[in-house]
Amino acid sequence: MSIEAHDVVDLIRTKRDGGTLTTSQIDWMIDAYTRGYVEDAQMAAMAMAILLNGMGRPEIRDLTLAMIASGETMSFEGLGKTTVDKHSTGGVGDKITLPLMPLVASFGVAVPQLSGRGLGHTGGTLDKLESIPGWRASLSNEEMFQQLRDVGGVICAAGSGLAPADKKLYALRDITGTVEAIPLIASSIMSKKIAEGTAALVLDVKFGSGAFMQDIAKSRELAQTMVDLGNDAGVRTSALLTDMHRPLGLAIGNANEVRESVEVLAGGGPADVVELTLALASEMLALAGQPDADVAGALASGQAMDSWRAVIRAQGGDPDAALPVARETHTVLAQSSGVLLEQLALPFGIAAWRLGAGRARAEDPVQHAAGIDLHAKAGDTVVAGQPLFTLSADEPSRFERALEALDGAYAIGDPAEYVARGPLVAERIAPR
Amino acid sequence: MSIEAHDVVDLIRTKRDGGTLTTSQIDWMIDAYTRGYVEDAQMAAMAMAILLNGMGRPEIRDLTLAMIASGETMSFEGLGKTTVDKHSTGGVGDKITLPLMPLVASFGVAVPQLSGRGLGHTGGTLDKLESIPGWRASLSNEEMFQQLRDVGGVICAAGSGLAPADKKLYALRDITGTVEAIPLIASSIMSKKIAEGTAALVLDVKFGSGAFMQDIAKSRELAQTMVDLGNDAGVRTSALLTDMHRPLGLAIGNANEVRESVEVLAGGGPADVVELTLALASEMLALAGQPDADVAGALASGQAMDSWRAVIRAQGGDPDAALPVARETHTVLAQSSGVLLEQLALPFGIAAWRLGAGRARAEDPVQHAAGIDLHAKAGDTVVAGQPLFTLSADEPSRFERALEALDGAYAIGDPAEYVARGPLVAERIAPR
Repeated sequence: MSIEAHDVVDLIRTKRDGGTLTTSQIDWMIDAYTRGYVEDAQMAAMAMAILLNGMGRPEIRDLTLAMIASGETMSFEGLGKTTVDKHSTGGVGDKITLPLMPLVASFGVAVPQLSGRGLGHTGGTLDKLESIPGWRASLSNEEMFQQLRDVGGVICAAGSGLAPADKKLYALRDITGTVEAIPLIASSIMSKKIAEGTAALVLDVKFGSGAFMQDIAKSRELAQTMVDLGNDAGVRTSALLTDMHRPLGLAIGNANEVRESVEVLAGGGPADVVELTLALASEMLALAGQPDADVAGALASGQAMDSWRAVIRAQGGDPDAALPVARETHTVLAQSSGVLLEQLALPFGIAAWRLGAGRARAEDPVQHAAGIDLHAKAGDTVVAGQPLFTLSADEPSRFERALEALDGAYAIGDPAEYVARGPLVAERIAPR
Repeated sequence: MSIEAHDVVDLIRTKRDGGTLTTSQIDWMIDAYTRGYVEDAQMAAMAMAILLNGMGRPEIRDLTLAMIASGETMSFEGLGKTTVDKHSTGGVGDKITLPLMPLVASFGVAVPQLSGRGLGHTGGTLDKLESIPGWRASLSNEEMFQQLRDVGGVICAAGSGLAPADKKLYALRDITGTVEAIPLIASSIMSKKIAEGTAALVLDVKFGSGAFMQDIAKSRELAQTMVDLGNDAGVRTSALLTDMHRPLGLAIGNANEVRESVEVLAGGGPADVVELTLALASEMLALAGQPDADVAGALASGQAMDSWRAVIRAQGGDPDAALPVARETHTVLAQSSGVLLEQLALPFGIAAWRLGAGRARAEDPVQHAAGIDLHAKAGDTVVAGQPLFTLSADEPSRFERALEALDGAYAIGDPAEYVARGPLVAERIAPR
């Protein structure tokens, strides 16, 4: 990439005044920011101008490509298999990657899930899998390629050399109130996914009170932006808009989410987790050229479970080992009889985080056995004295603040008061 | 001031989303920024949000008071004289402070002109006066008070302890494309002026192609904002909106501007400089309780000149000493006969700067004798071969780039093509 020099203050003014940045300006800006020539304060002003004035489709594509060009890129071209990846914008109880990856891989497709650890309510996918004795997240590129050839699926830590400009910009956005800019969210997610070299990508974009973007219209805009961006960059990309008003499944945590995922792979598990796993698997396999794959059959037949066991073993894990159990539990009982009217995802996420399932700082460990197990879902009939949910933690001192987070997060009432949510998978977003 | 703690990211989000910051939030933010607890990147994002979403009158007042509270303040209460100050937003050939200060002081009013050096096309008022042999800008507070008692006028360097938050924020805005935000411009100017402790203040807010704000509507908005702010803070404040499309007077530089100012004090000088000096003097004296002062008479009678000589001598200057003259001059002649149709302030300012009259970095010196002397003003009839203007510099190598700046900045043509400007003093802005 040949880079022409620009004056960053001119560029900030252009975006501030509603103008459009050129490819050359964006290339220069991201390169200069990565090198430290453009200062954090300048990029913060630019990020706020982008948040308030937006970016056009070519600018978002240029920004994404410039962030990719700031670091290393990977390629799966020599693999001899189609690659397809999935990314979720994140929600409470979202363990879908765990059953989804082996299910899709069981159809002969390569599924390289490069994940981070994140600062969510629970751990990231890597943290969840680390509940499995022996399993390791860190693989060399050679090990990753070999595993994709041998067993089709891999979940490992993303290389630190991918899109360093995005890492720097993300940390800056976090402290400057500029996280919620669709062009910046879309380019951040997509720069990493495109740099990873996947041929196809399915995005699970959440909406609802427990999602990063609560409003379905905003989620749709983000999804469409990312779908367009992926296809503009040569990655076959589509998205599902899915409801994140209530927790997904019954388990919120790390080890318990692995346990629930194994139930799904065994042909059981909560209906919503199964439904979303199948919808995303069908979408991924359609992008990989298998639109008619019998994904439900692969769960029922044990084909997906065999794939799971192979993937876990390939990364040193023992699929038959007992998962960790918390030292302390606290079960909350129904105070009255009726229908469970509500179960808000966000407070349950915060409670799980306070129990130790998530981390506050990047360097903190997570407590694998901490979390929440729901015994009833919204819409279920409950009777007074029946268990509603169980909190798990290694220290009993954590229960009080977790319960505070749950104040008002659920309610029991008359069946006539119950408001059902719309479909879990609300929309499919295709390229424009 | 008691300061309650806040989360800066919440504050940025509030302003980003079009909300209003409270007094407590603004006090905390400016204090925390001055102490370095709020980072430059965070304040840059806030500045961009303010630029794009604006601030209400109470927020601008709070911001100004918080910047004043970040440093020292002065008071002239023990002086026994009314104080009145003038501030100009700056223009090409704007030497009005020089004749104005002694003229107003000659009516028994104290005129404390605390000035900076700035990075303008020519030097600031201090640089201009330093062309006078012996004159010194740096006075102790005691010397300044004594001079205000004895001769009424003083022009000296502003104390470095006034509004340190403004200094820090101004430097940040300069590199982040956030200079042009009216709430930030207004609070920056007014925090220093209010901290200086003047009882009354007249603002000369420029508009036109050579002004910081070219559009009269924007200048009016800035003027009204500052006038309201001053009065809200207990300083009697009014403003004149004045035209800065063409240079003011015939001299653009430092020593030559002093020379032109002395001509005005002697009862002569260019009509526009005299007009603006008298308008601002009347406005200042009206605020000081002398609405009927005969300011033109004070120029004609020598009363203002006596005041000038006393003020210059009080700061060590010799009002009779010869002013410096440049080693090299280059005179541009009219190429044709006709009317001088245009004379654009900004290119003449840039040319003066390239000749050495201004500085590029705060630590650079200015060349006192460098600058431009106009021999005709727009609207004048000229004949081919007549001198139009003379460039002065210490190094002849500077002429070429100065002349490049003047390409297209003036034109000679048919009298019918000449477009007169509106009145020099377009509007008076009173408190709402």
